[in-house]
Amino acid sequence: MSEVKYSIPRGTQDILPGESEKWQYIENKARDLCARYRYREIRTPMFEQTELFARGVGDTTDIVQKEMYTFEDKGGRSLTLRPEGTASTVRSFVDQKMHGWADQPVKLFYIGPMFRYERPQSGRMRQFVQFGVEAMGSSDPAIDAEVIGLAMDFYRELGLKGVKLVLNSLGDQESRENHRNALISHFEPVIGELCSDCQARLEKNPLRILDCKKDRDHEKMAAAPSILDYLNEESKAYFETVKSYLEAMGIPYEVDPGLVRGLDYYNNTAFEIMIDGEGFGAITTLMGGGRYNGLVEEIGGPETPGIGFALSIERLLMALESQGITLPVNHGIDAYMVALGDAAKAHVPKLVHELRSAGLSVDTDYLNRKMKGQMKAAGRLHARYALILGDEELEAGTIEVKHMETGNQETIQISELAAYLQAGSVKGV
Amino acid sequence: MSEVKYSIPRGTQDILPGESEKWQYIENKARDLCARYRYREIRTPMFEQTELFARGVGDTTDIVQKEMYTFEDKGGRSLTLRPEGTASTVRSFVDQKMHGWADQPVKLFYIGPMFRYERPQSGRMRQFVQFGVEAMGSSDPAIDAEVIGLAMDFYRELGLKGVKLVLNSLGDQESRENHRNALISHFEPVIGELCSDCQARLEKNPLRILDCKKDRDHEKMAAAPSILDYLNEESKAYFETVKSYLEAMGIPYEVDPGLVRGLDYYNNTAFEIMIDGEGFGAITTLMGGGRYNGLVEEIGGPETPGIGFALSIERLLMALESQGITLPVNHGIDAYMVALGDAAKAHVPKLVHELRSAGLSVDTDYLNRKMKGQMKAAGRLHARYALILGDEELEAGTIEVKHMETGNQETIQISELAAYLQAGSVKGV
Repeated sequence: MSEVKYSIPRGTQDILPGESEKWQYIENKARDLCARYRYREIRTPMFEQTELFARGVGDTTDIVQKEMYTFEDKGGRSLTLRPEGTASTVRSFVDQKMHGWADQPVKLFYIGPMFRYERPQSGRMRQFVQFGVEAMGSSDPAIDAEVIGLAMDFYRELGLKGVKLVLNSLGDQESRENHRNALISHFEPVIGELCSDCQARLEKNPLRILDCKKDRDHEKMAAAPSILDYLNEESKAYFETVKSYLEAMGIPYEVDPGLVRGLDYYNNTAFEIMIDGEGFGAITTLMGGGRYNGLVEEIGGPETPGIGFALSIERLLMALESQGITLPVNHGIDAYMVALGDAAKAHVPKLVHELRSAGLSVDTDYLNRKMKGQMKAAGRLHARYALILGDEELEAGTIEVKHMETGNQETIQISELAAYLQAGSVKGV
Repeated sequence: MSEVKYSIPRGTQDILPGESEKWQYIENKARDLCARYRYREIRTPMFEQTELFARGVGDTTDIVQKEMYTFEDKGGRSLTLRPEGTASTVRSFVDQKMHGWADQPVKLFYIGPMFRYERPQSGRMRQFVQFGVEAMGSSDPAIDAEVIGLAMDFYRELGLKGVKLVLNSLGDQESRENHRNALISHFEPVIGELCSDCQARLEKNPLRILDCKKDRDHEKMAAAPSILDYLNEESKAYFETVKSYLEAMGIPYEVDPGLVRGLDYYNNTAFEIMIDGEGFGAITTLMGGGRYNGLVEEIGGPETPGIGFALSIERLLMALESQGITLPVNHGIDAYMVALGDAAKAHVPKLVHELRSAGLSVDTDYLNRKMKGQMKAAGRLHARYALILGDEELEAGTIEVKHMETGNQETIQISELAAYLQAGSVKGV
């Protein structure tokens, strides 16, 4: 053995057999749910021009300032591995002129890797997978309720318990402007007592002061003016309608005026889905979303309302695990072919190939193991049947079929084998 | 509208609705086929330590010398976006000590983006998706036939015609050494007439001279010694057995002694699947694969035989298109909800949510369109039924259900709507 050893990059993981089937199941669930809600898949590149994220995510955010994988390609262009999915989706909306599509609003979803250079810790990877949806082109409160309903259904249908929807309204531009001025007046007298980040935020984006982890215990934080007191009539009515739809849909929620999304073009509906912390450590936010009526314009498109959410599959898996939820994933196969003797062994590739072509999941021995070792492999792989072929059986055109669970064994004509196994196939279970 | 416009990085593409469903179909087909062959999915990170590819792909290759997206992370480590899938899979095999797994050989597959900085052209993107399989831990010729059979089944089950398997043996180490010496003796006298790349290859890797595009018309090329004349008895027997299995499986092939895989640790079976060039331009190779018995050791693991293939989904899609093959993708929905009147409209989110929870694919209007516009949308989205709800129907607890194809219309109790639609659902079709 050579001494060289290449380790996996820090903060990334291999998803191996046993685990990958769970990912397939969850992704299929997301795709199925999106089909029912008629959100259609978009796949954007893993990287974009760096400026897109500075503009679309916000150049005052931690993501853009500290956490991006940025590099130059050989042509000298600055590219960045996507840290989230919305900016890319909106870039594509503009690029592909989706505002001109006959079918409006444009309802999209994505599932794929995102990249943030963070200190790796439980539930926070440098490469992680997000499932997100974006609905662009409608400012009907019904679509806010739809997007939230889709997210809630996703967790519900996977069997997750203790899921809680937290809701807020950030208001429209006028409401936000009034709230912003109130925040500045509120914090200005004590700004010297706050951290340097917050001092910079005061004029730039005072809303983000409420998000500050350093200053969260300052006495002025709890008493900060609430956005809900500054909503104008239109924003208030919008929020009430969203809430009434959620109630009609049977989706309970809590309103938390402290729930903010930091960027200027976010407005009206903001939401997060949290999970009961028990057995789940500090991570209680499963996902977040909100309305971003200014973003498409910011990225160079026509004025277009939008709303979406994004959630991490890694966190979902942690939450499922913390609740002991087993996804209904099938690890078994229909049959394992056991061959004894040279003629039988030479016949196996053809026979196994025929069974697979008939839709059956079949494996066989590739290590020249003896009968006992092959039968053990059949058990280990959860084969429903062991198919035992010796030179004599082959001569006679028959094969021994042993039902692994009951131990029952029958002699079957090779020509009838596929049909026999299909009657008891595990596929699609 | 602002003047800013962010374009997609050169050589990458957005996969949009209409197209993404084809990708889903193809990936499902790959996953289903792999389940039947009992290959299980592995997902490795999008990037690895740069040295892995220098070692695992080969530092004399074009990929490593010219085409890698290499960058430093903020910790100063050199990382590279994966240009192919085998090196990462083998790194994971070693890292995760898969040689110790009870279940041998280890049979894995992957589907995901790869990255090569090439001049973009038809069928060659800088980000492209590969489907590949790797079987590690067996040197039974039956697994060579299995891997080839899986690839052939994949194209066959997608309906592709004119697919041709080209086969070669590169022999074992002894056979290759003898062939290598013969190649050096053959080209040495004329090496001054060949390109500078080939001059460098003569001692380093003379086999790659046969791959040279510049020198392919040199008179010494056609007469170069064939590996098949240098196979020792063991390699010859191995190759004969692989061929006999393929024949038994009903898979036709052509032997082409000019088919080489450039790297030192490739040996014995090498194969490519080509497609009839007609209507398909210059791209005729759909995929390639082969045996790499030295690679696991090269990456730092124990001596382990391996074989695999990788294919590009983009090229597959081009091939399907060139043959006018339509994948059986369903774009329709079960129902489109048409609401007239304020009370009816307010009731829509609840009703649509119930239908979706019952497993139906349903959409509705989010643009306050009039009846005519909503009915047009129902047609455009290929809804099976239009569900027409007015304030009066709502009052009576009924809804009008119009079968879009026949124009038949019935009045249904709202409480019975889900069951009525489920009887005629398009889902899963």
